Amino acid sequence: MEKASLDGAFFHYKIDFYYLSGTMQDALLFVPIDDEPILFVRREITRARRESPLARLIPYRSAKEILQHIKPMKRVGMQLDVIPYSDAVKFKELIGNADFVDVSPLTKELRKVKSPFEITLMKKAADISKKVYRKVPEFLREGMSEIELAGLMEAYAKPLGHEGLLRVRSLNWEAYTWHILSGRTGSIVSQSDSPMGGLGLSPAFPVGASLKKIRKNEPILIDFGICYHGYQVDETRMFAIGSMPDLFVKAYNACRDIHYRVLDKALEGATSKELFQYSVELARSMGYGDHYLGYKKHQVRFLAHGIGIEIAEFPFITANHTYPIEEGAVIAIEPKMVFPGKGACGIENTVLFEHGKYKVLTSIDENIIVV
Amino acid sequence: MEKASLDGAFFHYKIDFYYLSGTMQDALLFVPIDDEPILFVRREITRARRESPLARLIPYRSAKEILQHIKPMKRVGMQLDVIPYSDAVKFKELIGNADFVDVSPLTKELRKVKSPFEITLMKKAADISKKVYRKVPEFLREGMSEIELAGLMEAYAKPLGHEGLLRVRSLNWEAYTWHILSGRTGSIVSQSDSPMGGLGLSPAFPVGASLKKIRKNEPILIDFGICYHGYQVDETRMFAIGSMPDLFVKAYNACRDIHYRVLDKALEGATSKELFQYSVELARSMGYGDHYLGYKKHQVRFLAHGIGIEIAEFPFITANHTYPIEEGAVIAIEPKMVFPGKGACGIENTVLFEHGKYKVLTSIDENIIVV
Repeated sequence: MEKASLDGAFFHYKIDFYYLSGTMQDALLFVPIDDEPILFVRREITRARRESPLARLIPYRSAKEILQHIKPMKRVGMQLDVIPYSDAVKFKELIGNADFVDVSPLTKELRKVKSPFEITLMKKAADISKKVYRKVPEFLREGMSEIELAGLMEAYAKPLGHEGLLRVRSLNWEAYTWHILSGRTGSIVSQSDSPMGGLGLSPAFPVGASLKKIRKNEPILIDFGICYHGYQVDETRMFAIGSMPDLFVKAYNACRDIHYRVLDKALEGATSKELFQYSVELARSMGYGDHYLGYKKHQVRFLAHGIGIEIAEFPFITANHTYPIEEGAVIAIEPKMVFPGKGACGIENTVLFEHGKYKVLTSIDENIIVV
Repeated sequence: MEKASLDGAFFHYKIDFYYLSGTMQDALLFVPIDDEPILFVRREITRARRESPLARLIPYRSAKEILQHIKPMKRVGMQLDVIPYSDAVKFKELIGNADFVDVSPLTKELRKVKSPFEITLMKKAADISKKVYRKVPEFLREGMSEIELAGLMEAYAKPLGHEGLLRVRSLNWEAYTWHILSGRTGSIVSQSDSPMGGLGLSPAFPVGASLKKIRKNEPILIDFGICYHGYQVDETRMFAIGSMPDLFVKAYNACRDIHYRVLDKALEGATSKELFQYSVELARSMGYGDHYLGYKKHQVRFLAHGIGIEIAEFPFITANHTYPIEEGAVIAIEPKMVFPGKGACGIENTVLFEHGKYKVLTSIDENIIVV
């Protein structure tokens, strides 16, 4: 904030004020440059006091009341990448004559590196995930629909602490946990920036698990995120009933190979862009150039997304970012292959970088599970 | 649009372009005043063509490409209540010298009245809901947690077509289906504008079902929305194991009474505000003044919300709206009572107004179910 010459900044977006204050009550965080932060709480103040370690919590009802507690400012931070236009304009009018600066790059930058507390929560999420994946062979049976399996996994995960919703910084893109695709639905593309969108349940929810019945001898891709105390892990494993077609066994092994070779290269300090390009070259050299991260013109341009209280945050491994993967970063790396009309396969792990090594948090059995 | 002297309007928000185009692919709808609408589709055009009856669908990659298809305009509509500030500013810069008008009131107004097609989808959602509530006595057992019951209901609902996510027009408020509160959690207030927020699973998800175990002889409030092809119904019923305490039996009967008396009065043409005030007076006259729609200072100021592709849309029954409830409206009406430290009870139905009558779509047994 000092570097950006800000007198203060407002954090309206709950993802970020939760990160900074510890509560997701209906609130608004103000951080002045030269004083203690103030959490203004609309509802419910008692609960916010219990949850937040911040010293100054003030109940409020209207934006006007907030301004009574704030000195005049010249340069003010606001989260302009997420706050709706009308809200921002109203708020700016109230504050009056000041320059407004998007302050979201600040929290995004902070959140690139996870604290030990955050890592503890992500490890808990990974433990839940491990238990849920271990139950899959018990749930899986021929003729059940993708969405039925998804429902059973969710029902098992929730009493373990899984919060059901994955969060994402986007007006139009919703994250969901039930990305289960079997056979040909694995090659269906949809609105999402993902190699395989899936069929979903309707045009109003055109992604993820569908009513398609799961059959013998087809690849079953299970990409099922878990959220614990707001912190997420994301992982993908492959299952089959009867047997896994050879095409997918081979492609899956290629994905595992790419996954670990890219992680090794990340430790050497390669940049995001270099890592992405390296993975594309690996896929090509193994003969998967047209299938890697989507089929031909539907290929996506990222291999990994940072993960934490949002499902996609810094750092990314993508075609156009130029930073290396730093110590303290947690990424979900997901090499996947798509074969039109046949299906998809791939692996995904949530991986922490620390002490010059990487650690797979989602340490679930990586073998293809055939039941 | 003509009344607002608009030359054209952009619909960026998927809730509204789904309403207007039939698809939720990654797209952007442009409606010119004097020509056919154009749906610009980023991903995935084949699927959008299959889903949308619109004639003009154009693939695009960047906002600049869109403008090549559009004549210069003086007054342009945009959904300024939802589009992020930075996105709106960038888009406005691209379009250049024009006045921008918030066009969301237009779609909100349109969506106040449901079409026969929409009503068919909502009836399907209500059918799913009926089946799910009928399973509750089978799922419910002493010592299970609220979230476990919620998970079982979801797992049962999804293969019937329930899409899992409820949608809401808000930066910070997420809708969820698992609002199951037992005993004292029914009196816990949280960030949501609801008489009873519930405990939730953590400070990062401080609403709805929790890990609290469900006990004998306490009120169990099940408020479980269903979403089918994007269309939602919302309903609340009361359950108990062993017996329902008399306090809650009586308060529940008062809620049912208020529910139907307000609906009758709505048919007479009373305004939103009058209906709300009438319900408050009824509650007071029955001795529930301090408990109605929340306890004392936590009381909320709405009794019903319109419902459709968003969980809260026009019309509302609230303290400060002045319109009557029109033909074709669908509302979720939810009188509820809260008793601190003890719990909550109430009823909720999704109700259609047509042919001078009201019709309860969520026609689930309204008796308290004791197992």
